[in-house]
Amino acid sequence: MSLPGNASPSTGEGTEAFGQPFARSRAGDVFQLLRDGRARTRAELAEITGLARSTVAARIDALSAAGLIGPAGEAVSSGGRPPSRFAFQPSARVILAVDVGATHVLIGLLDLSGTVLSERRESIDISAGPTPVLDSVLELCGQLFSQAGRHERELVGIGIGLPGPVEHSTGKPASPPIMPGWDGFDVPGYVQKRFSVDVLVDNDVNIMALGERAAFWPNAGNLLFIKVATGIGAGIISGGLLQRGADGTAGDIGHVRVPRGSEVMCRCGNFGCLEAMASGPAVAAALAASGVPAKTGEDVLDLARRGNLAAIAAMRQAGRDIGDVLAACVNLLNPSVIVIGGGLSCAGEYLMAGVREIVYQRSLPLATAQLRIVQSMAADHAGVLGAGRMVIDHVLAPASVEHLVQRQQ
Amino acid sequence: MSLPGNASPSTGEGTEAFGQPFARSRAGDVFQLLRDGRARTRAELAEITGLARSTVAARIDALSAAGLIGPAGEAVSSGGRPPSRFAFQPSARVILAVDVGATHVLIGLLDLSGTVLSERRESIDISAGPTPVLDSVLELCGQLFSQAGRHERELVGIGIGLPGPVEHSTGKPASPPIMPGWDGFDVPGYVQKRFSVDVLVDNDVNIMALGERAAFWPNAGNLLFIKVATGIGAGIISGGLLQRGADGTAGDIGHVRVPRGSEVMCRCGNFGCLEAMASGPAVAAALAASGVPAKTGEDVLDLARRGNLAAIAAMRQAGRDIGDVLAACVNLLNPSVIVIGGGLSCAGEYLMAGVREIVYQRSLPLATAQLRIVQSMAADHAGVLGAGRMVIDHVLAPASVEHLVQRQQ
Repeated sequence: MSLPGNASPSTGEGTEAFGQPFARSRAGDVFQLLRDGRARTRAELAEITGLARSTVAARIDALSAAGLIGPAGEAVSSGGRPPSRFAFQPSARVILAVDVGATHVLIGLLDLSGTVLSERRESIDISAGPTPVLDSVLELCGQLFSQAGRHERELVGIGIGLPGPVEHSTGKPASPPIMPGWDGFDVPGYVQKRFSVDVLVDNDVNIMALGERAAFWPNAGNLLFIKVATGIGAGIISGGLLQRGADGTAGDIGHVRVPRGSEVMCRCGNFGCLEAMASGPAVAAALAASGVPAKTGEDVLDLARRGNLAAIAAMRQAGRDIGDVLAACVNLLNPSVIVIGGGLSCAGEYLMAGVREIVYQRSLPLATAQLRIVQSMAADHAGVLGAGRMVIDHVLAPASVEHLVQRQQ
Repeated sequence: MSLPGNASPSTGEGTEAFGQPFARSRAGDVFQLLRDGRARTRAELAEITGLARSTVAARIDALSAAGLIGPAGEAVSSGGRPPSRFAFQPSARVILAVDVGATHVLIGLLDLSGTVLSERRESIDISAGPTPVLDSVLELCGQLFSQAGRHERELVGIGIGLPGPVEHSTGKPASPPIMPGWDGFDVPGYVQKRFSVDVLVDNDVNIMALGERAAFWPNAGNLLFIKVATGIGAGIISGGLLQRGADGTAGDIGHVRVPRGSEVMCRCGNFGCLEAMASGPAVAAALAASGVPAKTGEDVLDLARRGNLAAIAAMRQAGRDIGDVLAACVNLLNPSVIVIGGGLSCAGEYLMAGVREIVYQRSLPLATAQLRIVQSMAADHAGVLGAGRMVIDHVLAPASVEHLVQRQQ
C-alpha cells in the first residue's frame, strides 16, 4: 500500500507552512521579514534572503511606494554614506472593521498595527435586508475617515462580521435565520462598488474569537470563544488557526443535546438543544413558566442583578447546561482558554460558576489541569478587533502584499 | 483599544503560512519547489525564486549530495549543451514507521513517497515496559533493511505510534493507562542510541487519522478518525492539520458522557462515559449481564457474525452511543468525513448503522449535507501509513531538509 499524492505539498500534514506559492510573492517575501518591526538595511535583507542586491533594492522601492515600509534611520557606516534602514510602517495604511449585529453596528477605522483610530456605533435593523443596512454602514465608513483625519486612498481592506452563518470563501450569508433577504447576497461585491479593496466576511462568533485572542491571548493557540445571547455559538481557534470546518458551520454548539432537555423542543425541530435550554430567551421562558416576569435575556439579567433568587438559580443552571456541552468540547479539543462572551455572560459570576462546575467535574483531569475559563474582556469590542485582525492578516500575507505593490506600480 | 503583538508574525491568524523562518532554510526552500515532482532546470529555479544563479547551483549540489533530488533528463537546448533538469527523488531515502499496539507491533520500511518497501508484524507485550519492547522493535527494524535490500545509511527518520497519550513535542508517554513503566520514558532518546535520525512519537489514534487521510482522503481537510476497541478515541484533522490541543489530549472522546449511561461507572471514576458504554469490554459486559456468554469485544464480534440477535442489538446500541457523541463533534467541527476504525468496527454494518442513525438525527442539516461516515479502509495498516506520513512530512519540511543537507557536507 502506498500513500498517493506525496509529491504534492498540498496534501501532506504540516504543509501549510509552505502553502503560499513561493514563486508568486517576491516583494511579499521581503515584506514578511520586515513585518517583525525590526529595521534592516538592503545589505542585511540580501544576506538573509539570498536574493541579489539589485532584486532587494527593487523590492524595497516597490514596498515603499505601496506605503507598507519606510526609512527607519541609518545603520553604522563602514566608510562612505551610511546605509538606510527600512521597517514596517503600520500607521501608513488603514482598514475598516465592521461588526454588524441584529440591532446595532460598530465600525472601526484601524491602522495595520490594529490600533483603533476612530470608531462609530449606530442602530440598524438587520431584518431590513442587505441593501439598506450596507448603505448605512458604507455611509458611516465614509464619515470615519474625516473623523480620524485619514484619507480613503489609504484604505487597503475591509473586514465584516455578520450575525449568522457566512460562506467565508465568498462572503455570502448562508441561510441566516435572523437575516431575511441576506441569504446568498454578495456582500463583498456590494461593498466593493463603494470601496475598491479586498472585503472579507465571517460570522460574528468567529471574528469575536479572533478579536479576543488578538487582544488578550496572543499566545493561545487553542482557544474557544462561546457567545451566549439570543443564540449560542462557538468560535474555535485550534492549532493557532480559526477553524471553519468543511462547510463553514464549525462551532455551532447551540444544537448539541443536553441531558436535562429531552422534553424541550428547539426552533431547529429537535429536542433538548443547548440553545433551547440556556439562551437568553430560553432562560426567560423557563422563569416565566414558574411565575417570574421575564420575557428576554435582559430581563433575566436585571432580575439576577437585583438579587432575584429564581433568576440567579436559572442563570447558574444555564451555565451548567453550557458546561455540559463544553465538557465534551474540552475532551475533544483540549483548549487552554475558554472565553465566555455575549449578552448573558454579563451576569457576573452566576453563569460562569455553573460552567466551571460541570466542566471541571466532567472533563479529563489532563485536559483541565491548565485550562482557564474566563469572561470576555474585549466585550463589545471583540467583533471590531477580530474583523480588524482578520483583514490585517489577509492584507499583510505575501500574496496580498504582492497585489498591493503591483497596483501601485 | 489596540491589538498587541501585531508586528510579530507569530501571533497573527494565518501566519503559519510563513512560520518557517524564511532565513534559515535555503536549500530547504529550493527543495519545496521540487517537491511537487516536476523536473526543473537551474535557470528555471533561479527565475522562480529570484535567487542568484550561483546560489541555485550550490543548493542543487547540496540537495543532490543529500540524495533528495537527482537528475531528471535534459531540457531543450537553445544552443550549446542542453541544461540538466532536477527532480525530487523519493526512492533514494527511507524511513521506518512503527505501530505499537498492546499485543502486536507492525513495522514498515517506506520510501519518501510513502510506498511500503517491506513490512513485519510480531507479537509483543506492551506491559513488559519500554526497554524490552523497544529492543525487540529495534531488532526487527534492523532486519527490515536486509529484507528490502536497503541500507541503514539511507534512513532519514522514524515515526512511532503508541497505544496511549504521548507528549508529541518530547515523544514521552504521559500517564498511559495500559503501559506500565512507560510514563515519561524518553522514547526518541532510546531509539536514537540505535538509529541516529529524527524520531517522532504520537498516540495510535492520531497516526491512524494521518494514515487514513493520506491513503484514502488526501483532499479532506476536515476528517475525524474514531477508534473503537478496548478504548474509544478520536484523531482530529481540522483545517488540514492534525490537532493535538494545548496539552496533547485532544480527541479523547471516550470520557464524554452519553445520556443513556448515567448509572454506569467508568474506569476514570466518572459515570456514563462513552467508553464505559460502547467499548468492546463494555458491550461484552452488558451482554454477559443479560446471560449471553461474552467476555471481550472479540466475543461480541463472533456472536454478531454468527447471527446472535442480542449481540447484534448490542453492537447497534454501541453505535448509537458513539453517534450521540459524534453528533456533537459534527456540530462543533463540521468534518467532511468520519472514519470508524478499531477492532469493534469490523462488525460490518451493525455498529455503523447505529452511528449514522444518531448523527443524521442529531446534527445540523447544513453540517451533514455533505458528510460521509465510513469504515476504515486502511484497517490494520492505518497506523504504519500514518506514522510514515508524520515522519515524511517532518523530514521534507524546509528546516529538516536544511539539517540533512548540512550533515551531508
